[in-house]
Amino acid sequence: MVVTVVGIGLIGGSMALSLRDIGFAEKIIGVSRRPETAQKALALGLVDEIMDLEAAIAAADLIIVATPVDSYMTVLPQILDKVTNQIVIEVGSTKKIVIDAIASHPKRSNFVATHPMAGTEYSGPEAAIHGLFVDKLCVLCNIEDSNPTFVKTVEEMYQAIGMRISYMNSADHDMHTAYISHISHICSFALALTVLEKEKDEKAIFDLASTGFASTVRLAKSSPETWVPIFRHNSENVLSVLDEYINTLLKFKGLMLADSEDSYDKLHKYFQKANDIKKILK
Amino acid sequence: MVVTVVGIGLIGGSMALSLRDIGFAEKIIGVSRRPETAQKALALGLVDEIMDLEAAIAAADLIIVATPVDSYMTVLPQILDKVTNQIVIEVGSTKKIVIDAIASHPKRSNFVATHPMAGTEYSGPEAAIHGLFVDKLCVLCNIEDSNPTFVKTVEEMYQAIGMRISYMNSADHDMHTAYISHISHICSFALALTVLEKEKDEKAIFDLASTGFASTVRLAKSSPETWVPIFRHNSENVLSVLDEYINTLLKFKGLMLADSEDSYDKLHKYFQKANDIKKILK
Repeated sequence: MVVTVVGIGLIGGSMALSLRDIGFAEKIIGVSRRPETAQKALALGLVDEIMDLEAAIAAADLIIVATPVDSYMTVLPQILDKVTNQIVIEVGSTKKIVIDAIASHPKRSNFVATHPMAGTEYSGPEAAIHGLFVDKLCVLCNIEDSNPTFVKTVEEMYQAIGMRISYMNSADHDMHTAYISHISHICSFALALTVLEKEKDEKAIFDLASTGFASTVRLAKSSPETWVPIFRHNSENVLSVLDEYINTLLKFKGLMLADSEDSYDKLHKYFQKANDIKKILK
Repeated sequence: MVVTVVGIGLIGGSMALSLRDIGFAEKIIGVSRRPETAQKALALGLVDEIMDLEAAIAAADLIIVATPVDSYMTVLPQILDKVTNQIVIEVGSTKKIVIDAIASHPKRSNFVATHPMAGTEYSGPEAAIHGLFVDKLCVLCNIEDSNPTFVKTVEEMYQAIGMRISYMNSADHDMHTAYISHISHICSFALALTVLEKEKDEKAIFDLASTGFASTVRLAKSSPETWVPIFRHNSENVLSVLDEYINTLLKFKGLMLADSEDSYDKLHKYFQKANDIKKILK
């Protein structure tokens, strides 16, 4: 199968590596807006050839769109306008706004909405790694609107690179990802800014960071190019969970300010409840 | 050297393992308020013998107090009242309130305040691990008030188990740890509660948690017995950094609510600034 990857960064590049590793792709064509990204992707061996979008669509059996989610609104219709029998998938972290935007496209059924939930805090073609998707979850959304044969090929592809598959409608997907994935990024970005603002001594940050700060703040290294569009697409869900998060912090603050046996007992009970996360995540 | 460990949990137990591994302790005596903890510590081979506090003080050359920080106010004076030439150290995450409480004790100079900055989200004697302190930082506080010979022995002990040593006064220590370590725990506890509150579907949490949530929420598995007393001791510094953190989240929220190109540009710039954490933490 000839696979075209549009956007050869962390996810697109890692997909290219995985699809070649398992022999699913006999040829991988890369498309990139930025010539330097295209050159890096070639040099790193992520793709066999660079083409412009039109040629890359024509040459492909399967097209993977892995650009930031805000570009989907223009890129997906452009691609669907040109496909004949190609399968088109995107791999973004938001689904409803994207799927709704192409809902009435005549080639809608060529499109399968997928979210392979894997990543690191790094970005760009250099961040692409082998095996990124092994043992991770891929969510397929609204598959009833996609050609069932195409869905089957996409399922087989994700299973072949090691993923479990789950099915959701786009609204549920966006709610769950806001609650679990997107809010974690907000927490980390805010934590990094707070510490950089309050702790002016960079050496102290480095020296004292052995204590769990490094793990809590890890996601703050993530690319704003990737994440701002995600928060924007999913702002309603993200704002709802962000409100809950801020309220929880305000409760903690109130209990600490009250500074009594009783208030610290309440804080203790909150933390015990938070410990329940152990039952879900080992 | 005979070492007594008072409180044989994650830190006390790991100290016992490390001190035996390097041959610093020829005998380790355990003291525990709870008989079941004492039995576990014996069964796990963390300590050679269990004694009551008085006998364990009399038999020791060095006494390590590794109970939750709120117990220090009663345990440390009790111990110092009974020592002759023993060295007494504690290993807690807060320093000013502890050191101030025993500042005028006649045996103050037998005491060395230390903070070996290492840990995991687990607790109790089963959480004790070999090599926990290797390549980590140990902060010694207000050493000018301790017997220099004792300080030297303590420095040599921490270096022998693999730690780098740094020196601070207690107020600076508490400010830096609030800014870097304590706030991270608050973030994680609040994130766990938020997600448990908003996301009622435990399977979704488990399935979707591959995305960085697991790392951001890791510290929420930590023991409330350990952390509530730390936040209480260090409430002034923790509240100050918590205010800054809440304000940062409110800024993010305001920018998302404004929902304009301009507001998302500003959010992008905040995240770019947050990325600066990469320069400090690889």
